[in-house]
Amino acid sequence: MAVYTDVDDTALAAFLGDYALGDLLSFKGIAEGVENSNFLLETTRGRFILTLFEKRVASADLPFFIGLMDHLAAAGLSCPTPIHGRDGKALRRLADRPAVIVSFLTGISPRRPNVAQCASVGTALARLHRAGEGFSIRRANALSVAGWHRLVDDCKAMADTVKPGLAETITGEFAHLERHWPKHLPSGVIHADLFPDNVFFMGDDVSGLIDFYFACDDFYAYDLAICLNAWCFEPDGAFNATKAMALSRAYVAERPLSRDEVAALPLLCRGAALRFLLTRLYDWLNQVPGALVRPKDPLEYFTKLRFHAAAPGPETYGLALD
Amino acid sequence: MAVYTDVDDTALAAFLGDYALGDLLSFKGIAEGVENSNFLLETTRGRFILTLFEKRVASADLPFFIGLMDHLAAAGLSCPTPIHGRDGKALRRLADRPAVIVSFLTGISPRRPNVAQCASVGTALARLHRAGEGFSIRRANALSVAGWHRLVDDCKAMADTVKPGLAETITGEFAHLERHWPKHLPSGVIHADLFPDNVFFMGDDVSGLIDFYFACDDFYAYDLAICLNAWCFEPDGAFNATKAMALSRAYVAERPLSRDEVAALPLLCRGAALRFLLTRLYDWLNQVPGALVRPKDPLEYFTKLRFHAAAPGPETYGLALD
Repeated sequence: MAVYTDVDDTALAAFLGDYALGDLLSFKGIAEGVENSNFLLETTRGRFILTLFEKRVASADLPFFIGLMDHLAAAGLSCPTPIHGRDGKALRRLADRPAVIVSFLTGISPRRPNVAQCASVGTALARLHRAGEGFSIRRANALSVAGWHRLVDDCKAMADTVKPGLAETITGEFAHLERHWPKHLPSGVIHADLFPDNVFFMGDDVSGLIDFYFACDDFYAYDLAICLNAWCFEPDGAFNATKAMALSRAYVAERPLSRDEVAALPLLCRGAALRFLLTRLYDWLNQVPGALVRPKDPLEYFTKLRFHAAAPGPETYGLALD
Repeated sequence: MAVYTDVDDTALAAFLGDYALGDLLSFKGIAEGVENSNFLLETTRGRFILTLFEKRVASADLPFFIGLMDHLAAAGLSCPTPIHGRDGKALRRLADRPAVIVSFLTGISPRRPNVAQCASVGTALARLHRAGEGFSIRRANALSVAGWHRLVDDCKAMADTVKPGLAETITGEFAHLERHWPKHLPSGVIHADLFPDNVFFMGDDVSGLIDFYFACDDFYAYDLAICLNAWCFEPDGAFNATKAMALSRAYVAERPLSRDEVAALPLLCRGAALRFLLTRLYDWLNQVPGALVRPKDPLEYFTKLRFHAAAPGPETYGLALD
């Protein structure tokens, strides 16, 4: 969480001239988002978030992200809404980077979500999946099975420096998942990174979803599997079955799952755990001197992966097959 | 500029229970301040800044800082005003650190201040000096001559790794300044760090001064010398005499300088340049692996130091002796 790029106030004033947002009142870099630089921008017309896309985001993907937020906001979802300039464009450049202004959302991200918040996020995830229907741009998930293959190759030589035996575990898990990964499940736009810091709450109710910069096309149930990983483990590594049941069942109440989706859930959870284990392991092994972000512990996802690999069936996550 | 400490939303809610600030609406870490963690806090009663004091700030100094902001705000200065809890206390603890909530100020920090902004900051600095009169707590300047002595000793062995000959320059400059440093000049509370990122503007007018965590008792004219260093050099190292004249004369219009203060100004500017050269050099030579702040270039102040050492008199800064 950091601000990577310094924005000159003169350049900012010129940039804002392309919008009908009134006069600038305040401008502060905020510690939100890992991949981009974010600023809280206040004008006489209200509050907004300015995002500068740093190099890890491919500019070819930006029309997808911005179009998606436009689509979801139009469908009534509480998410950042791109602000279009006087010329109709939402995407322009500032400080030599692609830049977008979006609406500001109130709410607080929970550090330790409670059961009611897990249920609310299950509902919100299902509504997101339904709101995304009809969006016309496609974006493949770069962090699905093919992407894991590359990460396994990049990490396996050094993995045992983090934990003895880790290379063998990830190679074995990857082989299993590649062999059994579903081919046909209901799919569409998924968030793909709906961790607690990307969800705002007012009390136990979701007030907004943010950070759509991993969004892509993939199985809806895989997005549910990511949330089960991100929301339903305690800080000591224990799986909280009450939270999982609350999250899954709230999801199903809003968007019923097919029998195939339910049956695949343990494997999808296992895949989601491997995905975050691999990206965290990669960042851990490839730390950049002077980086402004501390890498997250990859082994948190080793524990989760082991849990899912041992799960007897979808009942573990509060869902039954019949 | 970073957020060093993670604040749990549950702990935050409990903390806010000690204040009459209404319900929490939003909470974001902001990239402001180098020494502390700062958060933008929005409640149903308005917007505020929450500061957590990290270990570089001595807790014994906190009553001075908080009392000073109370004093300055009561005197009509636009600065962060400490919010007192239901029990009357402004200083309490959160996330195992001393914590204070202060009022939010609108305005933008300029990256390249213009002449009119330099004049405004001269006026604001003089008003700060007058507003501080009558404040009863004292705090010695830890970064005056005695403090430089320690820094010279800590840095001189490695200084030449940054620039050949630097050790000799700082030793020689320190000896000169120690011998000639004034003993008796008008003194009182100074800001001691009034760089552009600590001043908010609406257009060319100062809307607020922030970050009083280097404030201390010292010569008023030394604070002016710090501002001449911080505001009146261009990015290429050139001294902008027009800006210096605007800043100095606006200061004098609000708080006249004695003949001794004017005569001492070149030496005080030279001392201020050595002070920032030394602290930046120390931070440069003692970089902490994994630190979230990039150290600033110490040699910017080497250039400034050389300029001041060659200045023929106070006329350089737009002031005359008679």
